[in-house]
Amino acid sequence: MPQTPHMEKHFTASDAVRDVVIGMSDGLTVPFALAAGLTGAVDSTSVIVTAGLAEIAAGSIAMGLGGYLAAKSDAEHYHSEQVREQMEVREKPADEEEEVRDVFRAYGLSEEVINPIVTGMKKLPESWVDFMMRFELGLEKPEPKRALTSALTIAGAYIAGGLIPLAPYFFESSARASLPVSVVVTLAALAVFGYIKGHFTGAKPARSGFQTVLVGGLAACVAFLIARFIA
Amino acid sequence: MPQTPHMEKHFTASDAVRDVVIGMSDGLTVPFALAAGLTGAVDSTSVIVTAGLAEIAAGSIAMGLGGYLAAKSDAEHYHSEQVREQMEVREKPADEEEEVRDVFRAYGLSEEVINPIVTGMKKLPESWVDFMMRFELGLEKPEPKRALTSALTIAGAYIAGGLIPLAPYFFESSARASLPVSVVVTLAALAVFGYIKGHFTGAKPARSGFQTVLVGGLAACVAFLIARFIA
Repeated sequence: MPQTPHMEKHFTASDAVRDVVIGMSDGLTVPFALAAGLTGAVDSTSVIVTAGLAEIAAGSIAMGLGGYLAAKSDAEHYHSEQVREQMEVREKPADEEEEVRDVFRAYGLSEEVINPIVTGMKKLPESWVDFMMRFELGLEKPEPKRALTSALTIAGAYIAGGLIPLAPYFFESSARASLPVSVVVTLAALAVFGYIKGHFTGAKPARSGFQTVLVGGLAACVAFLIARFIA
Repeated sequence: MPQTPHMEKHFTASDAVRDVVIGMSDGLTVPFALAAGLTGAVDSTSVIVTAGLAEIAAGSIAMGLGGYLAAKSDAEHYHSEQVREQMEVREKPADEEEEVRDVFRAYGLSEEVINPIVTGMKKLPESWVDFMMRFELGLEKPEPKRALTSALTIAGAYIAGGLIPLAPYFFESSARASLPVSVVVTLAALAVFGYIKGHFTGAKPARSGFQTVLVGGLAACVAFLIARFIA
């Protein structure tokens, strides 16, 4: 997949887009598959709507609040590692110096090339710590307000996504009559979502659309067959 | 949270542990909340078992297959960016040189310190590309076999986690009688899981246990109230 070398920037999806994608991928898929699956076992839309809304509530809380707490833990982990690096730079500079050297040795650079960087780093202890955080430990500095925004975006996208497959069941009393509408609407939504997602993430849009349809469709089929089989 | 500076290694959870944590967090939470929620609306365990198994199928496929395809896309994205970097290093070395300089300038290092590294990089075009991939773009080299193992681990952990809250409903015909057993068993499982997860991820185990119980418990409460309200 060679790409034109003239493009100005390498693609990076914004954090907000990433969060919408995370929430909506699962939101469109799991409530859809659950509703389709239950249709294999019961014909009352009221049970399916109840189960679907319960699932949307549970899934959005698990993803949103779960994600929020995970981001908070990451931030604390970053901070504790930073404190340790600061201590190490202060108390065991020779060891840390070796670690800087190791980062560059891994790229096959010689000691003569590495020496000036090490000397330079030693004059900037704060930068030195930042450098180690990123290049030795591979940790990104967390943005303080991101955790909450991210949690709300993911949860909101999950709810928005989940209401699409469920909507047809609101207007009918027969689940079996609602299922085809839900399938058509949701597969179309998955295709559009996957296509747009592909645009944002740098994947081929058509292929990305096909893949989201495949995941959603397969999940719904398996859920339907399981429910059919045990009901 | 200062930590002892004598610890030999900074903590990094293995990929397998990470995958189990991802799958089991949601697996313990969402089917639990769905089953508890449905108990607020129906008293037949057969409906709840059907919905629960359909959810477990849907969730494990969405997380497993979805994760697999995402990992494949990441690998392709890495490859396409790598091709572009290789081209840029070959065709616009002056621009790429500036980019290397920018990476180091961000740490406040002076040009005299940066010059030798740039000179060194130019002699090692392959390392140069690797360096840009990691330090300019922040992309990690994907492991080719990881995507499949990761998908299966996440899906398996989701299924294992999901069967715990559902198990009590298998043995009773009254959902309301099964609910308290499911709540006790699942909150205990969430606490143990969160505690162990804390150990692996470097968070305080007791706090991590409390948090997983909070997310699962809150999701179940909200799902129950929603189902109660609409049923």
